[in-house]
Amino acid sequence: MLIEKIHSPADLKTLSRRDLIQLSQEMRERIIQVVSRNGGHLASNLGIVELTLAIHRIFDSPRDRIIFDVGHQCYVHKMVTGRMDQFPTLRTLGGISGFPKGCESEHDAFDTGHSSTSISAALGLALARDRFHQGHKVVAVIGDGAMTGGMAFEALNHAGHTRSELVVILNDNEMSISPNVGALSGYLHKLRLEPSFFTPKEYLEYVVRQIPGIGSRMLNLLLRIEGSLKYLLTPGMLFEEFGFKYLGPISGYDFELMERTLSHARDRHGPVLVHVLTEKGRGYKPAKEHLPLFHGVGPFEITTGKVVKTPEPPSYTAVFGQTMAEIGQRDDRVVAITAAMKEGTGLDAFASAFPDRFHDVGIAESHAVTLAAGMARGGLRPFVAIYSTFLQRAFDQIIHDVALPGLPVVFCLDRAGLVGEDGPTHHGNFDISYLRTIPNLVVMAPRDEYELRDMLRFAPTLDRPVALRYPRGAGMGAAHGPTPHPLTVGRSEVLQDGADLSLWAVGHMVHPAWQAARLLAAHGLRTQVVNARFVKPLDKTMLERTLRRHQPIVTLEEGTLAGGFGSAVLETASDLGFAPRVLRIGLPDSFVPQGKQAELRAILGLDPDSLVSRILTWMQPQAQPQPLRKVVG
Amino acid sequence: MLIEKIHSPADLKTLSRRDLIQLSQEMRERIIQVVSRNGGHLASNLGIVELTLAIHRIFDSPRDRIIFDVGHQCYVHKMVTGRMDQFPTLRTLGGISGFPKGCESEHDAFDTGHSSTSISAALGLALARDRFHQGHKVVAVIGDGAMTGGMAFEALNHAGHTRSELVVILNDNEMSISPNVGALSGYLHKLRLEPSFFTPKEYLEYVVRQIPGIGSRMLNLLLRIEGSLKYLLTPGMLFEEFGFKYLGPISGYDFELMERTLSHARDRHGPVLVHVLTEKGRGYKPAKEHLPLFHGVGPFEITTGKVVKTPEPPSYTAVFGQTMAEIGQRDDRVVAITAAMKEGTGLDAFASAFPDRFHDVGIAESHAVTLAAGMARGGLRPFVAIYSTFLQRAFDQIIHDVALPGLPVVFCLDRAGLVGEDGPTHHGNFDISYLRTIPNLVVMAPRDEYELRDMLRFAPTLDRPVALRYPRGAGMGAAHGPTPHPLTVGRSEVLQDGADLSLWAVGHMVHPAWQAARLLAAHGLRTQVVNARFVKPLDKTMLERTLRRHQPIVTLEEGTLAGGFGSAVLETASDLGFAPRVLRIGLPDSFVPQGKQAELRAILGLDPDSLVSRILTWMQPQAQPQPLRKVVG
Repeated sequence: MLIEKIHSPADLKTLSRRDLIQLSQEMRERIIQVVSRNGGHLASNLGIVELTLAIHRIFDSPRDRIIFDVGHQCYVHKMVTGRMDQFPTLRTLGGISGFPKGCESEHDAFDTGHSSTSISAALGLALARDRFHQGHKVVAVIGDGAMTGGMAFEALNHAGHTRSELVVILNDNEMSISPNVGALSGYLHKLRLEPSFFTPKEYLEYVVRQIPGIGSRMLNLLLRIEGSLKYLLTPGMLFEEFGFKYLGPISGYDFELMERTLSHARDRHGPVLVHVLTEKGRGYKPAKEHLPLFHGVGPFEITTGKVVKTPEPPSYTAVFGQTMAEIGQRDDRVVAITAAMKEGTGLDAFASAFPDRFHDVGIAESHAVTLAAGMARGGLRPFVAIYSTFLQRAFDQIIHDVALPGLPVVFCLDRAGLVGEDGPTHHGNFDISYLRTIPNLVVMAPRDEYELRDMLRFAPTLDRPVALRYPRGAGMGAAHGPTPHPLTVGRSEVLQDGADLSLWAVGHMVHPAWQAARLLAAHGLRTQVVNARFVKPLDKTMLERTLRRHQPIVTLEEGTLAGGFGSAVLETASDLGFAPRVLRIGLPDSFVPQGKQAELRAILGLDPDSLVSRILTWMQPQAQPQPLRKVVG
Repeated sequence: MLIEKIHSPADLKTLSRRDLIQLSQEMRERIIQVVSRNGGHLASNLGIVELTLAIHRIFDSPRDRIIFDVGHQCYVHKMVTGRMDQFPTLRTLGGISGFPKGCESEHDAFDTGHSSTSISAALGLALARDRFHQGHKVVAVIGDGAMTGGMAFEALNHAGHTRSELVVILNDNEMSISPNVGALSGYLHKLRLEPSFFTPKEYLEYVVRQIPGIGSRMLNLLLRIEGSLKYLLTPGMLFEEFGFKYLGPISGYDFELMERTLSHARDRHGPVLVHVLTEKGRGYKPAKEHLPLFHGVGPFEITTGKVVKTPEPPSYTAVFGQTMAEIGQRDDRVVAITAAMKEGTGLDAFASAFPDRFHDVGIAESHAVTLAAGMARGGLRPFVAIYSTFLQRAFDQIIHDVALPGLPVVFCLDRAGLVGEDGPTHHGNFDISYLRTIPNLVVMAPRDEYELRDMLRFAPTLDRPVALRYPRGAGMGAAHGPTPHPLTVGRSEVLQDGADLSLWAVGHMVHPAWQAARLLAAHGLRTQVVNARFVKPLDKTMLERTLRRHQPIVTLEEGTLAGGFGSAVLETASDLGFAPRVLRIGLPDSFVPQGKQAELRAILGLDPDSLVSRILTWMQPQAQPQPLRKVVG
């Protein structure tokens, strides 16, 4: 096996063309093997095997800095930079990350995870290099999907202006996660169809030489129409306008052409953009046939591509998707917006049922939110479905364009709390804190997938900005009749009463809290369990009732403790003139590593057994507050 | 006076060309008059007088929706839409806003304030219109500066894709606030120099007809080079690539040309971009000569343009600017980044001293932060100076690109807390809350302008992400020697001790707290006054010492109470096992209106006298918590 001989990028440089082809094949097999077991981003990594090898042959990592935008396509990069042996631990607790991590290897020049950051980061590295008069190269590898993110544009605009040396490799697979949208995508598609690798001058001569007799005179005339002329001849003119030299488009599977072009890019001065055409899922039929499914996939059977599913209740995402389709049916003012996550958010059913009322804006969360504000102002009832971690991109737009004018937009935050194997860049730790600081916003979290249904039906009736957050993964299998439970803004639900202790839980921590209460009963503790339902406004009336009984309070949330739900309980109690004894349980004020959701919950003390032991320790007289088991540095 | 006869846009439609010119003159005088008294955005409004009149003659507001990006250039719009009489109350407490406000007039189609939102909002309104089969027009008026913001690009990309009917008017004055940066700016500059108003076909014919004998054959040949051809002939090709019909460039002072072009734009199908050339400060010499000064200006003398300044200590901004220049001198790894606010942030001194180490990225906060992350990764020590309210645009980038990898970037948030007359879109209410939820970040606030110096010198020595916030306006005139006071992370400063009561204040609330303590002494209360210095990490040791004395605690901050500094004190006390009685004083959980800073502080109970009366009431036995006087709905 060739793959066993690759320990660093240097080992690639001596390989023959034939070896490279064989190595690519072996890499693909290894990726399929590991991802079929651990889950991960399959299709993008299969597409970028040859391009990654070519980059590492032409550039000299870690001296040269290679940045992978989003970063989930870094598997081949990890394998060729000394992490072949650890590759089977991909995305597991304590294993290597599915994203570049500087703490893992000096070859990971910049940590990524969210989209469209690579050109900004690369320009920063390039300007630092220039300042220190160093000579290394900086390379950003960015997909055409990520290119639709506004900050990629901001960076292109600035980079073109600085003229600093910088290579941007546009990995164009005509996909972000769902097929791409937007005018840029149309533009790139057109470039794909143009003759490649003519220089402007070659092309000009080719055209003009065809005119008998008058060729050279014509050439001169045309050259006089200065400025405009290059539009005629440069296929990548859009990028050229931004001050980048455009090279391409070239095939991402032609080693010779890639290496020639990348060498040329490396040796040029100023910013260069190399346009490389690749195919997601290349070399694995099931992935090519079901691209959205194999974007980020759980364990699957290699021969058939069938995803291995343990039987479980439908996911929150599935319930969301189904409910949205129903709501759309009932209220034709309802429209749905996603940022390149039609399948991931579960909006595909809505999109099929109401294609005119479904808007995929591409990877553009900021625009998505203000677009929704405009729609709401125009009389529609937009639902914006964006994962918790990605909605951070639109924090200002939620405040400024939705909450301040009080527009009726519903934010649906899937993947709130711990997401699992994608790790710290993707956990939804912060939403409770950053949303509850926003005036005019109602913030809810359902205790199970059926309360999610109730909340989704309830939200648009409020005629004001609403956010609701729910976790990744399977629901509780909770039973539910056809009629929704009535909800009232700022009204909690008492699941059981008890005089010794009160558990105030929010969202998917309600169920573990309730389980913990049953276990505490065995220790003789009569425990009140409250499903807060609303983070904002918090149920003051019920909290005051609890406070008047002077029993200790435990708050439970799967969100950061800094400014979170427990913090809101403390604030409200204090405002009501009480000074209760409170134990806040939630996510620590640190970045949480990768691992299965259940593993992380156990480590962080969020499973029912841990909850019981933490609560009992805390309940002991004169107990010191318990430090959380530390999982990150 | 013509100006007295304008009560609605309808009154404009019958005016002659001569009347329009006279009206423009009168409008300019009125703007100069009011702004010279109330302060405001002068230069941009002087530039856009004729264009605004032309827009209101061609479009039919409020049926047609006109959105002003950023919105500070809406003065003429306000005057012609029934607010002439209220115009003298501009930007005052209870007066009309300096920005569009739907609650003020149905002619304000969408509330703006932050940059680059208008195309998103306009597209939202357009899609809502399409959905309801209505026939009105939607117009976004956006400056060339705002066009560099990433979300404007996201919106262009999406709008071009939808093909919905939409008019974007690019108000190109070659300025954002400082002169523009970036490749886009270069591109627009080039368009300015091109012959305008040739259609592609006219231009083609013009060129080809000059070739004797061969004209028509040549024409056919060229037409065969399909696709590429339009590059040759369309000056606004960049916008055309995004699916917009480009019209322009045209002068913003030629009524006939503007009205012809705008009519054409109005009657087309699909998205249109009209490129209009204007001059900031047009018609008022002092403004034209000192553009950055007259972007947003305080009261000034009309004849001379001299800004009326009451003698006061140097502003925080000035001290920041001066200190940055010193720090740059001492450490050549230090670089400074601004998002189109060189003068506003006070970085002009640094920029003059170290032009190579100063980076104005344009209105592009997201890019600015990740650029800084790249620079820090490359060994530099970037300081990012962005106003509190605008840094909300980079919330995700601070978390994901700076705090997660723990990179040494220093964030300098000017305009933290109440900014005054610019009102709710510009107050810096939220930074304490949104910053303190971020792991790995140190969050500081100086008690006066000289502690700001100390903190600025201290920040880069920490080798980790740091944010510091300070207010708009004059410092305290605090004395300070040449040697910095030593600071320690997470260590507060006890300004005076006292056994009855403890005031924990942060940032510029320390001084009022200290004044309140002196007044409380007259009521027989011995008051401890603590300057927290660090919001994160909070001084646990000192807080525990306070807590052990079981005295009531009052927290004071000029930031929202929801998740703010007081909330952090409650959290820490609870984690330490205490349940103290706490009064939290700060900004309410609502959007704060416009008014002078001092007026707002008095209304919100943040001035020393109000503090004393609130504290005394609260200290009474069995006191109920005091509701804040409500200032917003």
